[in-house]
Amino acid sequence: MVTRLSHLFVRTLREDPAEAEVASHRLLVRAGYIRRQAAGVFAWLPLGLRVKARIERIIREEMTAAGAQEVHFPALMPREPYEATGRWDEYGDLLFRLQDRKGGDYLLAPTHEEAFTLLVKDLYNSYKDLPLTLFQIQDKYRDEARPRAGLLRGREFTMKDAYSFDHTDEGLDRSYTAQRDAYERIFRRLGLEYVIVQADAGAMGGSRSEEFLHPTPVGEDTFVRTEGGYAANVEAFTTTAPEPIPFDGLPDPVVFDSPGTTTIQTLVDHANEVLDGERTAADTLKNVVLALTHLDGTREIVVVGLPGDRDVDAKRAEVAFAPAEVEPATEEDLARHPLLVRGFIGPWSPQGPMLGEESATGIRYLLDPRVVDGTSWITGANELDKHVHGLVAGRDFASDGFVEVASVRDGDPAPDGSGPVALARGMEIGHVFQLGRKYAEALGLKVLDENGKLVTVTMGSYGIGVTRILAIIAELSHDDRGLIWPETVSPFDVHVVATGKGDDAYRLAEQLVADLEAARLDVLYDDRPKASPGVKFGDAELIGVPRLVVAGRGAADGQVELWDRRTGDREVVSLADAVTRLTSR
Amino acid sequence: MVTRLSHLFVRTLREDPAEAEVASHRLLVRAGYIRRQAAGVFAWLPLGLRVKARIERIIREEMTAAGAQEVHFPALMPREPYEATGRWDEYGDLLFRLQDRKGGDYLLAPTHEEAFTLLVKDLYNSYKDLPLTLFQIQDKYRDEARPRAGLLRGREFTMKDAYSFDHTDEGLDRSYTAQRDAYERIFRRLGLEYVIVQADAGAMGGSRSEEFLHPTPVGEDTFVRTEGGYAANVEAFTTTAPEPIPFDGLPDPVVFDSPGTTTIQTLVDHANEVLDGERTAADTLKNVVLALTHLDGTREIVVVGLPGDRDVDAKRAEVAFAPAEVEPATEEDLARHPLLVRGFIGPWSPQGPMLGEESATGIRYLLDPRVVDGTSWITGANELDKHVHGLVAGRDFASDGFVEVASVRDGDPAPDGSGPVALARGMEIGHVFQLGRKYAEALGLKVLDENGKLVTVTMGSYGIGVTRILAIIAELSHDDRGLIWPETVSPFDVHVVATGKGDDAYRLAEQLVADLEAARLDVLYDDRPKASPGVKFGDAELIGVPRLVVAGRGAADGQVELWDRRTGDREVVSLADAVTRLTSR
Repeated sequence: MVTRLSHLFVRTLREDPAEAEVASHRLLVRAGYIRRQAAGVFAWLPLGLRVKARIERIIREEMTAAGAQEVHFPALMPREPYEATGRWDEYGDLLFRLQDRKGGDYLLAPTHEEAFTLLVKDLYNSYKDLPLTLFQIQDKYRDEARPRAGLLRGREFTMKDAYSFDHTDEGLDRSYTAQRDAYERIFRRLGLEYVIVQADAGAMGGSRSEEFLHPTPVGEDTFVRTEGGYAANVEAFTTTAPEPIPFDGLPDPVVFDSPGTTTIQTLVDHANEVLDGERTAADTLKNVVLALTHLDGTREIVVVGLPGDRDVDAKRAEVAFAPAEVEPATEEDLARHPLLVRGFIGPWSPQGPMLGEESATGIRYLLDPRVVDGTSWITGANELDKHVHGLVAGRDFASDGFVEVASVRDGDPAPDGSGPVALARGMEIGHVFQLGRKYAEALGLKVLDENGKLVTVTMGSYGIGVTRILAIIAELSHDDRGLIWPETVSPFDVHVVATGKGDDAYRLAEQLVADLEAARLDVLYDDRPKASPGVKFGDAELIGVPRLVVAGRGAADGQVELWDRRTGDREVVSLADAVTRLTSR
Repeated sequence: MVTRLSHLFVRTLREDPAEAEVASHRLLVRAGYIRRQAAGVFAWLPLGLRVKARIERIIREEMTAAGAQEVHFPALMPREPYEATGRWDEYGDLLFRLQDRKGGDYLLAPTHEEAFTLLVKDLYNSYKDLPLTLFQIQDKYRDEARPRAGLLRGREFTMKDAYSFDHTDEGLDRSYTAQRDAYERIFRRLGLEYVIVQADAGAMGGSRSEEFLHPTPVGEDTFVRTEGGYAANVEAFTTTAPEPIPFDGLPDPVVFDSPGTTTIQTLVDHANEVLDGERTAADTLKNVVLALTHLDGTREIVVVGLPGDRDVDAKRAEVAFAPAEVEPATEEDLARHPLLVRGFIGPWSPQGPMLGEESATGIRYLLDPRVVDGTSWITGANELDKHVHGLVAGRDFASDGFVEVASVRDGDPAPDGSGPVALARGMEIGHVFQLGRKYAEALGLKVLDENGKLVTVTMGSYGIGVTRILAIIAELSHDDRGLIWPETVSPFDVHVVATGKGDDAYRLAEQLVADLEAARLDVLYDDRPKASPGVKFGDAELIGVPRLVVAGRGAADGQVELWDRRTGDREVVSLADAVTRLTSR
């Protein structure tokens, strides 16, 4: 097919759109691929739709090759199934909710676990029907608080979501592996480097969860990895707790005056002035007060004790306390708990243990796993301008449990013993996830097994954000002058530009595009008679088809110039050579 | 591609779904094509998705061939552009409205005229950019009061909508004709017989509007046509008014007692008893009281006078009074207008004219176009149990205008003089529509013309309901035992069934499907080892692939049976012949 630029619905823009924060957004709008309709909501112009269709085709082919079957659910879904699994509430403000004319509650689906579960329950009832993997490529909705970065985090976005159904754990492992393998093939075909990292399975109740991250310094996700092959996002990282230390011979805790030392740094400095020995932040026990908002609306105060050289990592805390929402406690929260003296909070006071027994205090006290029995700490003494040193965990204070919220650092030991981790950043490009039986249990999806016994089905969930992937590819594939698409997803195979006065170039270009079309290539042909060479080259660079052919100066001699958009290499060849080169790849 | 039925996600059902009102709905659910998610909202299973994709491909090919370019708008659209054109209100309860977390108003788009207009305004500014026709195939939303008949009238449905942009009326005519021609090709390829009828352009402000109707006695739309080539839906039919009659020598109106004659029939019977001559319902003037609800919420009472042998046609009234909603007046409405004595309403009383001057009465009085000056009527005298005869239009009473709401009948003269019309029924399968400048004016879409002058763009709008078309094809293509797809949209090209004990049939079938796959046919292969021949044939008939091949009894001799699902014809042939026959079409 040949598309003439004189006919194509596109208008390249010189100016960056005002709201664009990232390169992909800026360039996709300027090059005429997408157009904003509302915050996080975009229209697809012909160029954009072509790239999207190519990505979808690759995904569809690999899904089908992996034995998954395509279906398509509506975006508009009734409340009831989401109510049954708790997601109607759990999703909070992220869910677009609406009512129909009769007052019935609906939502715009963010994903379709419930619907797939119910569909399989409706139609299948025997282990003989399994394994089964279904997928769809469909528009989804999330009412993001800060829709930003163009397609990277939209409110309406296209996703491939797949769901597997098995009646045994081994079956789930096989289905999971089939999807995981398909994802590897998809990202290879898309030219997207990836790292597979362990992800938190957490609140979803599943057993195995991995994310495909594209490693890039500008990624919004942080992950850790070791040279020994361990990789996890920080939410899934688990701390290696040291062995407990015997209490024998440890001195008693001693309270000391510490006026105005309400930060770890001032506390350490002061302690090193008034006490023997050289202490660091790691010798202090920092007590952070968090406020959780539970699904039923109640607000709970939780205190987390962790080594003073660590902070609470917001993402790890989010996962640790989900589905409750977590935020730092406010002055008002503290005012309601006079026990907690800001700057001097600790699990113990001269009168004895203070925190660590929720039933007594009404406050949950959770510890970082490093705070094992026998470790000795400097921490608040629960009085203004007082701290305590020599406070020993397990002897002087207890906790209501442990929690994984402390920040992860370069050099922390990997939980699998493969060595110290290094932090890196990446962008999530896919997620494979063993849901287990959570949805099947909530919605009653059971099948008869080999022995005629009803067993609950176990499920997997597998997602790729199609429009997000497109943006990520654009983010990785551009230079100052515009986009540079990988050949597998470029809107066209070749971009032919005719320039110059007289008819020679246009005649030659017409011949060239006809030959390329005969070879079944998709060709964009810049046939605009009045646009200057500068405008044409500028548009070609902005639009970003990786292979360019220019019919211009040498056209009278039957010569064209092959351009490589990525390297900038140019080469003068005959028409016949150009056709051979472009069609032989 | 070969799809094995043992693997395909499908479960045929013996029972009709409880909510199914029409054959297409019943069969598409039973055969495993679709599955209801909510009233008027369906999920697409693999079989259904295949048929839908084939229809979409045909539409896409013909749109592209007609020079239209594909784009894709979001379903979630902000309120503002729909507010600017008045549709936010005009659509009333049909619109799904919702708010985002910040309280911003959004809708789920029923169509995208506004968005397309604004997009072209954003990017184009010269007559040189035109003509332009854009289309999308996209899921749309209408909160129907009575979503019914499965996919025929859904609340979430897939539509191809196209919009053309021109700067001259002649250009619009050309763009319109190109779409109209494409529609003819699409419906021919889909095997859908059609009639192109004039449709009402009415409230949309356009100049030309035609519907493609599939003629069928079970259609929900009524249209009229003549042997001379006229065709229109009843909403667009215009009444041929007779010539006015001179008043000279017509006797004065005479009031007569008519106790209890509150219907046309009792009035005619009574009149024929007490007056000279033989009267019929056509000699009476029926006055129907209607209540309009305007967009601003105000309620207006309108009286319509029409010959007593006609009724008010609800659809014609809907169009005539749009965007106001129209319904019969209630007792309460009448109570508020003591002027109107139910059963005896008329435009005149012995005290003189009663209706026909809105400024005096506060009630609009509109007449059927047949009530021309000089016609003489029996009608109510605005007193209980009194009528009047010899009441002459234009002499004794006037009106506030004419209105096209009377029912259309077989034999009514066509407005183009091509003879008497015949009524017929059909299903709407497409609509082409000259919008004119309404949207461009409301949203400020102008371009510079050849003389450097800003001119408002003129637009066309062209729609095909993809999922509706699919249902209509199913509605037309079935028998008692199941669906019978036209070859162009069948989910598979061939359905191969292996039956019988032993391996011969399966071996032969495997060979057959391999040969068919090599010839690039899409094959559904019923390889289920344990299903009985009865189950397999039943499923094959229900699923409705038109070409069946059975490998069974003669398999040991290399013979298969070719079945024609539509005619029921069967023929025993060799494997090689079967392949030749199936691949040579």
